[in-house]
Amino acid sequence: MSLPSAPPLSTTPTLLTPGPVPLHPEVQAALALDMIHHRTPEFDAILARVLRQLSRVFETQQPVMALSSTGSGGMEALLVNTLSPGDLVLSVDSGKFGERWAEMAKNFGARVETLKVDWGHAVKVGEVAGFLKQNPETKAVLCQACETSTGTLHPIRELGELIHHTEALFLVDGITAVGALPLPMDQWHIDGLVGGSQKAFMLPTGMSFVSLSKKAWQAQKRARMPRFYFDLQKELAANQKGETYFSSNVTLIRALDISLRWILDQCGLQEHLLSIERRAVFTRRYAHEMGLQIFTQAPSNSLTAIRVPEGIDGQALRLRLEEKYRVTVMGGQDQLKGKVLRIGHMGYLPWHNLQKFFDALPQAISELSPQWRSPRDLDSLRLEMQGFTHHA
Amino acid sequence: MSLPSAPPLSTTPTLLTPGPVPLHPEVQAALALDMIHHRTPEFDAILARVLRQLSRVFETQQPVMALSSTGSGGMEALLVNTLSPGDLVLSVDSGKFGERWAEMAKNFGARVETLKVDWGHAVKVGEVAGFLKQNPETKAVLCQACETSTGTLHPIRELGELIHHTEALFLVDGITAVGALPLPMDQWHIDGLVGGSQKAFMLPTGMSFVSLSKKAWQAQKRARMPRFYFDLQKELAANQKGETYFSSNVTLIRALDISLRWILDQCGLQEHLLSIERRAVFTRRYAHEMGLQIFTQAPSNSLTAIRVPEGIDGQALRLRLEEKYRVTVMGGQDQLKGKVLRIGHMGYLPWHNLQKFFDALPQAISELSPQWRSPRDLDSLRLEMQGFTHHA
Repeated sequence: MSLPSAPPLSTTPTLLTPGPVPLHPEVQAALALDMIHHRTPEFDAILARVLRQLSRVFETQQPVMALSSTGSGGMEALLVNTLSPGDLVLSVDSGKFGERWAEMAKNFGARVETLKVDWGHAVKVGEVAGFLKQNPETKAVLCQACETSTGTLHPIRELGELIHHTEALFLVDGITAVGALPLPMDQWHIDGLVGGSQKAFMLPTGMSFVSLSKKAWQAQKRARMPRFYFDLQKELAANQKGETYFSSNVTLIRALDISLRWILDQCGLQEHLLSIERRAVFTRRYAHEMGLQIFTQAPSNSLTAIRVPEGIDGQALRLRLEEKYRVTVMGGQDQLKGKVLRIGHMGYLPWHNLQKFFDALPQAISELSPQWRSPRDLDSLRLEMQGFTHHA
Repeated sequence: MSLPSAPPLSTTPTLLTPGPVPLHPEVQAALALDMIHHRTPEFDAILARVLRQLSRVFETQQPVMALSSTGSGGMEALLVNTLSPGDLVLSVDSGKFGERWAEMAKNFGARVETLKVDWGHAVKVGEVAGFLKQNPETKAVLCQACETSTGTLHPIRELGELIHHTEALFLVDGITAVGALPLPMDQWHIDGLVGGSQKAFMLPTGMSFVSLSKKAWQAQKRARMPRFYFDLQKELAANQKGETYFSSNVTLIRALDISLRWILDQCGLQEHLLSIERRAVFTRRYAHEMGLQIFTQAPSNSLTAIRVPEGIDGQALRLRLEEKYRVTVMGGQDQLKGKVLRIGHMGYLPWHNLQKFFDALPQAISELSPQWRSPRDLDSLRLEMQGFTHHA
């Protein structure tokens, strides 16, 4: 007779990355459904519902469009539909994704001024204000809501208040933010917003969701950056006829229908955001109890970047978590390589997934650095975690 | 006790469109797998294998890249990576997708000359030769291998022989052709080739596969059309490090791993093409026996466009097939609206799916036009069809 024991290590690691994220079982079932054509009454109904519900997550009166691309494609769509070559653009660069957006705008001919922000710091609204005052011809300000490479949250609401009163558009990369933390597009005066399927929308990678404000649609009429695949006017016109301009991403849109019901109807958007916040707050507390530091000064709720203790190679730590403990978290990129672990808080995350990581982390660190001890006892936090409901 | 009877009408219609196509059950199972991160040893192995195997389907020594976009995104990638604004481009326009590619090239600043071909006719190689002789500065010739709006096959081999000896690049939209009919990229001197996931690759919509010849990679060094999301140099560099440049489309790439095994190892590429050919040949024979005409002079094996008999509204016929007989086929677009039915031959198509359509078609026509009778008896063909093996 076998002894009662802990569940065996699963073949598939527990996924705790800032995208892709674990899928709801009903989403997984939807992904496996028989294929149907996108020009059928059945799909028409799904597409119409999904597009309506996306506007609720974006908290906008404007239409949201669903594109077959990763989030970066959606970032490109925001630029090429609102700008012309030669336009002056201010790009906030506080990490890898800020760098990418600035490079993208340059490639399409924008005159890009970069506002460099130290990794792990939020942009100062006053600096953006100063730039816009000195450069009233600025056509757009680009900023991440959350810079995924560092887990930093930028002051989007305050930036929206500022930029709203200028001629510039406020384009926001919300890929690890829309649906994960408060980001009401209309109320915060965001002119272009992009989200990604494999983040808070709890789907596989492969779609981006984008929306433009009225101000941005006005700019679109004059925008001369070349576009075809990412032409939002064509996409919107197709959506208004109940179609997508290109072949519809039937499988992901059917799955999105399920995940949006989960987010909006089962949980409710506010409760969904709160559950992500609870994971983030708990993760920061746990790291603190372990004597570890959060990398950023302005932590986002969608992911937490934890500094790896001095003397430990973060890549080795990540590999050990992956291979021995079967927990996938992300490491750092570029200047943060080997220096942080990034833990995602989005997705379908039952509490025992988090628990698995919190159990593994001190063990894995001890194994790599035998003299390391957690400065405080972690049992009470672990006990608290066990009281969490299913959808932590 | 219930009577033995025909299987009940399924809720999900039988899919016989030229993309999306029915999925192999193992592909469906792969789509529902637990999510994993794309920076894991497990995914690395899958991506490396899939990229190698794609080159076998393209029949090229060159790398094939897998992009998160529909086929149209791949068409854009071929243009923007090889051309500069102002470049003279000859675009073969024999249907809706030819039109689209020309418009795309114009949007990115190419000087596009259109070679109009009547819908349902193959382009004449001599006309392309004449144009290239008169316009030796031509930088590229764009052509569909199969024009999906009409089911027409173009003489790609002969065009390749011709264009190969000029300075121009030969860019081929193989979205309903790669993996469905013979189109050996290297042997036929194709410089840029694009395929789509929801066609012969038997996956959901959402990825395009593209490859460039050596000649095209040379051109890429000088190409100045702006690009970022579709920058193939970045993608190739990432692939060479075992990664994708943007977040990997984990779900579709895992499913592609399964479908490529099916195509290359279970069937073998030649047998896979033959099975599609058999469906096409049989469909043409069946239509002929019914007294119906094939729309095009140069039918492709990937789909068949059948003319709807005089006096019958093709849209009503399509709707009846969909709603009463639960068989999804496509209608015509633009000038062919209501005039043709388009039947796809790609995908995981057990013979009884085809049989369902062939049984329904004469019945549905009779219902819409009670005086209509098939000029010949269809029983012998139906009997023949029953002898087909599983993967017709």
